[in-house]
Amino acid sequence: MKILITNGTVLTMDRAMRCIKDGAVAVENGNIVKIDNKDRLAGFIEDESATCQIIDAKGGIIMPGLVNSHTHASMTLFRGLADDLPLMEWLTQHIFPAEALLTGELVHKGAMLACAEMIMSGTTCFCDMYLFENEVAKAASNCGMRAVVGEVLYDFPSPNYGALENGFEYVNNMMAQWRDDPLITVAVEPHATYTCAPELLQRASILAREHNAPLIIHVAETLSESEQINEKYGKSPAAFLADLGILSSNLIACHSIHLSKEDMELYKKYDVKVAHCPESNMKLASGVAKIPEMIDNGICVGLGTDGCASNNDLDMFLEMDTAAKLHKVFTMNPEAISAETALKMATINGAKALGLDTITGSIEVGKRADIIIVDSDRPHMIPLYNPYSHIVYSATGSDVSTTIIDGRVVMKNRKLISMNAEAVMDDVIQAAIKISQNDVKKP
Amino acid sequence: MKILITNGTVLTMDRAMRCIKDGAVAVENGNIVKIDNKDRLAGFIEDESATCQIIDAKGGIIMPGLVNSHTHASMTLFRGLADDLPLMEWLTQHIFPAEALLTGELVHKGAMLACAEMIMSGTTCFCDMYLFENEVAKAASNCGMRAVVGEVLYDFPSPNYGALENGFEYVNNMMAQWRDDPLITVAVEPHATYTCAPELLQRASILAREHNAPLIIHVAETLSESEQINEKYGKSPAAFLADLGILSSNLIACHSIHLSKEDMELYKKYDVKVAHCPESNMKLASGVAKIPEMIDNGICVGLGTDGCASNNDLDMFLEMDTAAKLHKVFTMNPEAISAETALKMATINGAKALGLDTITGSIEVGKRADIIIVDSDRPHMIPLYNPYSHIVYSATGSDVSTTIIDGRVVMKNRKLISMNAEAVMDDVIQAAIKISQNDVKKP
Repeated sequence: MKILITNGTVLTMDRAMRCIKDGAVAVENGNIVKIDNKDRLAGFIEDESATCQIIDAKGGIIMPGLVNSHTHASMTLFRGLADDLPLMEWLTQHIFPAEALLTGELVHKGAMLACAEMIMSGTTCFCDMYLFENEVAKAASNCGMRAVVGEVLYDFPSPNYGALENGFEYVNNMMAQWRDDPLITVAVEPHATYTCAPELLQRASILAREHNAPLIIHVAETLSESEQINEKYGKSPAAFLADLGILSSNLIACHSIHLSKEDMELYKKYDVKVAHCPESNMKLASGVAKIPEMIDNGICVGLGTDGCASNNDLDMFLEMDTAAKLHKVFTMNPEAISAETALKMATINGAKALGLDTITGSIEVGKRADIIIVDSDRPHMIPLYNPYSHIVYSATGSDVSTTIIDGRVVMKNRKLISMNAEAVMDDVIQAAIKISQNDVKKP
Repeated sequence: MKILITNGTVLTMDRAMRCIKDGAVAVENGNIVKIDNKDRLAGFIEDESATCQIIDAKGGIIMPGLVNSHTHASMTLFRGLADDLPLMEWLTQHIFPAEALLTGELVHKGAMLACAEMIMSGTTCFCDMYLFENEVAKAASNCGMRAVVGEVLYDFPSPNYGALENGFEYVNNMMAQWRDDPLITVAVEPHATYTCAPELLQRASILAREHNAPLIIHVAETLSESEQINEKYGKSPAAFLADLGILSSNLIACHSIHLSKEDMELYKKYDVKVAHCPESNMKLASGVAKIPEMIDNGICVGLGTDGCASNNDLDMFLEMDTAAKLHKVFTMNPEAISAETALKMATINGAKALGLDTITGSIEVGKRADIIIVDSDRPHMIPLYNPYSHIVYSATGSDVSTTIIDGRVVMKNRKLISMNAEAVMDDVIQAAIKISQNDVKKP
């Protein structure tokens, strides 16, 4: 099966940041096989046009699908349930009681809605942490999304697996089930330094290494977390993890807001990856991660939305815009994060952080076709001097017309193909009635 | 002529913040005449249904059109021309040379594109400052948009009117031309404290008072501005304006980032209004205005996008989202600006700032019908626990399906009715070719 995506500006996001005006991308069996001027690629279809699907970008932007490097997809169930509250009140009075209701079925419904939203806003790959995570894997697989998934592990009993021992068994089963899957990667995901004992963390780390799997954890998200770890262990969360021997190039440290210079040196030394979630960090008033400094230090930073209960959407275009702007004003330096840098975080560097950069994150020959088309034929995208600027500062997820994942067209002309959007939305509307009845704050 | 907007959740944004589920709004001759449950309003059409247009909100959100309290509409011409640069390099090497090319015709084209973008993203009223401003007034009037418009005045010769004397004549002519216009209000708009001599400022203030017109000026946008005024006059920009006798309830002080406690006291004393532009302030690394403190002090704050060369869009939904999040993280307080407060800034408080709150900014009987419908039937708007949260944290301008201004439907089902969108876009695409050839940084 061949696909020719043609008649657009191709932002490759390759090492040379090649940008091809009037370009085209040829795909064969899901692999990107040619990237060139559209006239030079016209021959790709001539031989056997019957088996080639032609997708006309109509002068829009052809670019890699976005990589959401940290989210809790099924929290779509709680979008807007509670906002503008202190973190502990938000968690203990709204989110935890709502999560106590969770079942595998509900998690699956929430994840399906998240996949619908992500595909419609140009995300082709996401990295997830939640309860009943095998349901998230199934949802992603059903919709044809690429995903890194991991069951959250912590010291207390889980609403999913109960005792921790079962949690490790659950992860092992997931690994067996999805081994060699073209779309799903299973990660090991201890929740955070303040919810996981050293034994849990070390065991998780060993398991991840054995399977060459990503190890994913929240680090230094709040000041109180740093204080707590410092009180308990006499060191920062990053130093605590370093001393446990857990820092490594397969570790994705989500948030990493409150890092000292020494913490950053540790990240650099061990090639730790960071998932940066500016909108969630702003909304929960957690703080601003020192991203420009990390990037200057050569630390690989991906971008994520976090769960959409603290965002409240999964739109990576908005996340890029916010990332680029927030660091400018926070450092009082308009050059702090450029549009190009923000777009790298949301594509190739996100893929690198997840260990998937040989497969996705850029349009390069040999990679799988994770490609989106962004329409530029609408007032807020006119005129077009610089496509990077437009993608980061002017576009939103609603400007994505077509989404292709692993060579499969999952959205065309804003119509979802790999799922029944109406049914998915209706499922969550029904679920939300129960969730809202259980909430202390009536809507 | 009657319109019944029905079958949606009505967010009135009135003093009581009434929110009517399954509601409807009845409009007659452009005036809002009834707001009620949709069943109780069904009778509105029964008598003479032939003359009543029924607009089905399909379960979406019916709310006041948004008020953009500070922009430079025609800067759509320069959207993405230059980004991520220090302010002076951005201005002197890109924006000023581009603006030197401006003609009335170009300003008109840019303003038409801005109106298209604003109507499509739910803005029904905007407050503008630019060169050749009568062309902006004409564009707004042509498209049926409500606007406060004012020619920018400063000490140096203008590309539009030449010497300052002609500038005042130009403003007087605009006032004569648009007197009693239902949509256009002419304001007096000296540029800033560092570009206008005391004589200019005082003369502008007197003119505004004579005509009971808004007086609009940039204040304390950058640290260097504050330093410059302090060096020249030995006081802050706000104190300088106070001593000139210019602070009053008809003054809109745009940005107002670098205010001292004393400056804020002056604003409070004279009931000065503030137009807050968080995205532009972030992108240009100008700083973060102390908005929560201003609101606590009872200062009226509207929200604006600023020109879209420093944003780079005119989407007030994104601006609300950013405003709510930025102040949370900047004050490390998740309650700093709630969704409701952000929405007030973008509606009723913006209208108040512009002196138009008897006409627009909320859905109340007796006001003109400036109303939008936001679709909630799409994945990122599901489920719906709290409409305020959705509007601020989940929606973007692309979710607006219908826009009504002054009782006229200017967009329906995302199709612009009051202008030819294709022609407007094409005009700016053509203009941009010349602008880009003139720019030092080739795209």
